[in-house]
Amino acid sequence: MTEPSPMRWWGWGDPAHPSVLSGRALELLRQTVGLSPDPRPPVALDAVALPASRLGEAKLDSLRAILGSDGVRVDHAERVRHAAGKGYLDLVSIRAGTPRAAPDAVALPDSHPQLRALLELAARESIAVVPFGGGTSVVGGVQPIAGDHPALVALDTGRMSAIRELDRESRIVTVGAGIRAPALERHLAAHALTLGHYPQSFEYVSLGGCVATRSAGQASSGYGAIAKMLLGLRLSAPAGDIDLPPIPATAAGPGLRELLVGSEGALGVIHEISLRVRPAPEERIDEGVFFESFQAGLDALRALAQEHAMPEVARLSDPRETWLSLALADSGGRESAGHTPGRLARELKQRLGRAYLGLRGFGEAATGRCLAILAFEGHSDEVDVRRSRARRLVRAHGGLLVGRSPGEAWRKGRFQAPYLRDELLTHGVIVETLETATRWSNMARLHAAVAAAIERALDAQGTPGIVMCHVSHLYETGASLYFTYIARQRRGAESEQWSAVKRAAGDAILANGATITHHHAVGLDHAPWLSREIGETGIAAIAAVKAELDPTAIMNPGKLALAGLANRV
Amino acid sequence: MTEPSPMRWWGWGDPAHPSVLSGRALELLRQTVGLSPDPRPPVALDAVALPASRLGEAKLDSLRAILGSDGVRVDHAERVRHAAGKGYLDLVSIRAGTPRAAPDAVALPDSHPQLRALLELAARESIAVVPFGGGTSVVGGVQPIAGDHPALVALDTGRMSAIRELDRESRIVTVGAGIRAPALERHLAAHALTLGHYPQSFEYVSLGGCVATRSAGQASSGYGAIAKMLLGLRLSAPAGDIDLPPIPATAAGPGLRELLVGSEGALGVIHEISLRVRPAPEERIDEGVFFESFQAGLDALRALAQEHAMPEVARLSDPRETWLSLALADSGGRESAGHTPGRLARELKQRLGRAYLGLRGFGEAATGRCLAILAFEGHSDEVDVRRSRARRLVRAHGGLLVGRSPGEAWRKGRFQAPYLRDELLTHGVIVETLETATRWSNMARLHAAVAAAIERALDAQGTPGIVMCHVSHLYETGASLYFTYIARQRRGAESEQWSAVKRAAGDAILANGATITHHHAVGLDHAPWLSREIGETGIAAIAAVKAELDPTAIMNPGKLALAGLANRV
Repeated sequence: MTEPSPMRWWGWGDPAHPSVLSGRALELLRQTVGLSPDPRPPVALDAVALPASRLGEAKLDSLRAILGSDGVRVDHAERVRHAAGKGYLDLVSIRAGTPRAAPDAVALPDSHPQLRALLELAARESIAVVPFGGGTSVVGGVQPIAGDHPALVALDTGRMSAIRELDRESRIVTVGAGIRAPALERHLAAHALTLGHYPQSFEYVSLGGCVATRSAGQASSGYGAIAKMLLGLRLSAPAGDIDLPPIPATAAGPGLRELLVGSEGALGVIHEISLRVRPAPEERIDEGVFFESFQAGLDALRALAQEHAMPEVARLSDPRETWLSLALADSGGRESAGHTPGRLARELKQRLGRAYLGLRGFGEAATGRCLAILAFEGHSDEVDVRRSRARRLVRAHGGLLVGRSPGEAWRKGRFQAPYLRDELLTHGVIVETLETATRWSNMARLHAAVAAAIERALDAQGTPGIVMCHVSHLYETGASLYFTYIARQRRGAESEQWSAVKRAAGDAILANGATITHHHAVGLDHAPWLSREIGETGIAAIAAVKAELDPTAIMNPGKLALAGLANRV
Repeated sequence: MTEPSPMRWWGWGDPAHPSVLSGRALELLRQTVGLSPDPRPPVALDAVALPASRLGEAKLDSLRAILGSDGVRVDHAERVRHAAGKGYLDLVSIRAGTPRAAPDAVALPDSHPQLRALLELAARESIAVVPFGGGTSVVGGVQPIAGDHPALVALDTGRMSAIRELDRESRIVTVGAGIRAPALERHLAAHALTLGHYPQSFEYVSLGGCVATRSAGQASSGYGAIAKMLLGLRLSAPAGDIDLPPIPATAAGPGLRELLVGSEGALGVIHEISLRVRPAPEERIDEGVFFESFQAGLDALRALAQEHAMPEVARLSDPRETWLSLALADSGGRESAGHTPGRLARELKQRLGRAYLGLRGFGEAATGRCLAILAFEGHSDEVDVRRSRARRLVRAHGGLLVGRSPGEAWRKGRFQAPYLRDELLTHGVIVETLETATRWSNMARLHAAVAAAIERALDAQGTPGIVMCHVSHLYETGASLYFTYIARQRRGAESEQWSAVKRAAGDAILANGATITHHHAVGLDHAPWLSREIGETGIAAIAAVKAELDPTAIMNPGKLALAGLANRV
């Protein structure tokens, strides 16, 4: 099994990945939000300033006695790689060579006994432990915060990544939690199976990290979010182990599995997980649909979700996101590897005729049209039936079916956004996302309120931007709203700018009865809202579990709003 | 909305319900397990011995000040009605007029403010509180155990049963947790909707009780167990309130909703719940199927669950249960109200011809044939497609489709078993059930091991019995096994006999990697196994939540293995 190349320390993804920023996109951004006249690439790795490790040789020797000498890393490169996740503030600081903190060492246990010994040593010696899977958190979830402890290690789960059991009859795979999503999918593909979990972080994410953060993949409408896939897990905490075997369902008391899903490393280290798998799809069909309005699209998606026509992937862009997608899809700029936006634009022109012209310029407010992408996959017969039903429902809501191109273009670019974000940072442009979920009857109101809040906050920062959104992750009762905003960075005041927008959006989300996060987890960024969402008594209940499992509070300090640390928003 | 008649205090159900025990069944039991020569009906209500209430007038006045005088009941009848659930040991003791304990008063809050004030008073005054919904627990979940407290009230949720909101667009209903299942279904039916939650206790169960016990209904293969239906809930605990609004999904930290599902009144009182609803089915089709062997039936059910042909109800009887169903279905005895077993037997004879003859006598071991009932319901088009697929899969596994009669007979009698159990107790016969769940690959092994353990334990008690089982509650990854055993009671040693069997079955379940309960909850009966299933650290985590929410341990003492009380097994 090939391991992925280590991720760029200063940003997202494979170091060998080509540029994804087209000339046309850059020009469009120059005309709208404005670019910095002063491009600012990341500094060189050697130039990153790290504090000296606070772990003396005696403690490092104790760690090495447990993990072996190659299981303890204190070199500059490894400390930098584990100094931050991939949130906006992480990137701003690490690209500048000034990470906000860094682990004093990186620990790599390769077994449960090593893991237990490590946690017990850390508890004894007051060393904070930050579990680190793929390092892909966008909410500060792997931020090295030592709290009251004199030192901190990043606990990299990468060596606990074996496939332990594949129970094909029951369709359950049991793996070490450090396994990366692509490695698991490759293994399953050899047995004609799939997990079907494709978050945007797919290329680097660890499955244990997905469980710890309640991840939902792009195909969650069909496959379910990770919480639905999880049948069993093993967690090691400083105070002991919790081993929950894979069982399809149980009424044996409070939902302990679900309590540990979303525990974000603050309750212990999830080191083994058992997940439901499915047959690899025989067939996969992408459908593009235009709706006359966002509301018509919402109604159609609701019908799909409620009337036995749920697609695996559903994604309805609001008018602004629709406009931007098409504007960027229009040929003119260079086409990056794997992208065929020019072809998409040509095909849409042919199909939509004059209607297309209204979409591609700045006339989006006038047309209000919305593009949806639906993807159906699975067993051919079953997909055919479900897709026919879906097409009927879509047409009944005035949807115009425009073929496979939009979906295929999306599929080709589905993991590209983080690469684009990095390139735009060089040009002084922030691209940030945030997401929520609510019931169907609250969707339109929430969409309007959050978009307006973000727009106002950007205006107040003096950096008016583009705010757009799509609906995805459908349920019978509601769905997720995923917002993206693009604006000029306030260089030198990046944190202030970002925090102002985050505060406005988070407040609007809570004021409108939605969740502060549907699939990005809490980490540091959402901690200020957690008590408003689950109440002080809810926080106290989780804090009590933490105090029991992690009595000296070494596990991922400052996350989940449990430690009472000042947070950064 | 008509309220159901209050349940028989000495057993199950509507006092006006006719006898369900046919002469043929009684004769068959006489020939197999044996009847008592000394029928023993329940004593009269007046003859039930209750200890004097330990609540003095001062405390009763404090309660009345909160709840009004009709919100506090100390009369004999109400105390008896709240003295026990409907488990076997409950029935044995209450029928004899010697309940193992009784509440000192019954408290009936009708609002959240009353509930809060009641809990705060109880915490202040050291009064244990046993939340009581429908009172249908079969695992000792409402057993009045005061623990270290000098008094105990049963907190009847029956007055907190309003329909608060029906969000038809989002398909979410929000109700007071005390609402009974039939009342909710009647309300929903007026809007052409259904919850689809039909546990055997349907006639009397409260929905809040279902949430508190992780209930699964007979149609859970299609509609999901209650945990899947729950979008939001409000819980009042002595230390405060947790209010979680209805949201389709969230990644905001550990799964607090799921932690409270299954909390069994030990963490607080669930007083409001928001549940997903669905359209009332246009069509409902029952299919009966015979399989050549239990394994063939298991394979077929697994195919249905994994290949897009999941029925709403699936129930595969093992050879012994198949034999008994058919033996009782054979005409000969009287047919009780609503039952048409004679017609079923006649129809099966016609369809199965000679094969039927092998099934109806004691030749079940030789034939090994197994009857399955599948029910499909929903939108007509969708049901037709799914049912056709199911019929194809069933045939591919050698299943012989025998029409609607078995399913229709099951449907007519689906809520009758508890009535039958009561009548058999009069004749000195124990009918007891227990259930578990496991992955598909472990199903046959678990079935054999648990059945053998029960048989051996009954033999060792000198009361050899009939042990039978069905598979139900299908998931892609596994299913539930539901065991029934029938034996002569050891009069005077009922508890010893029952405990010996329970111990044997529970140990076999845990030794074979399954869960101690799929949908009956923990209560008192399963408490001895909980630490083996979730570990001491798992117990400690839940106990920490309890200590936080209920610091003086007044909530449902002794349940969930949290209080360290000696348990009764």
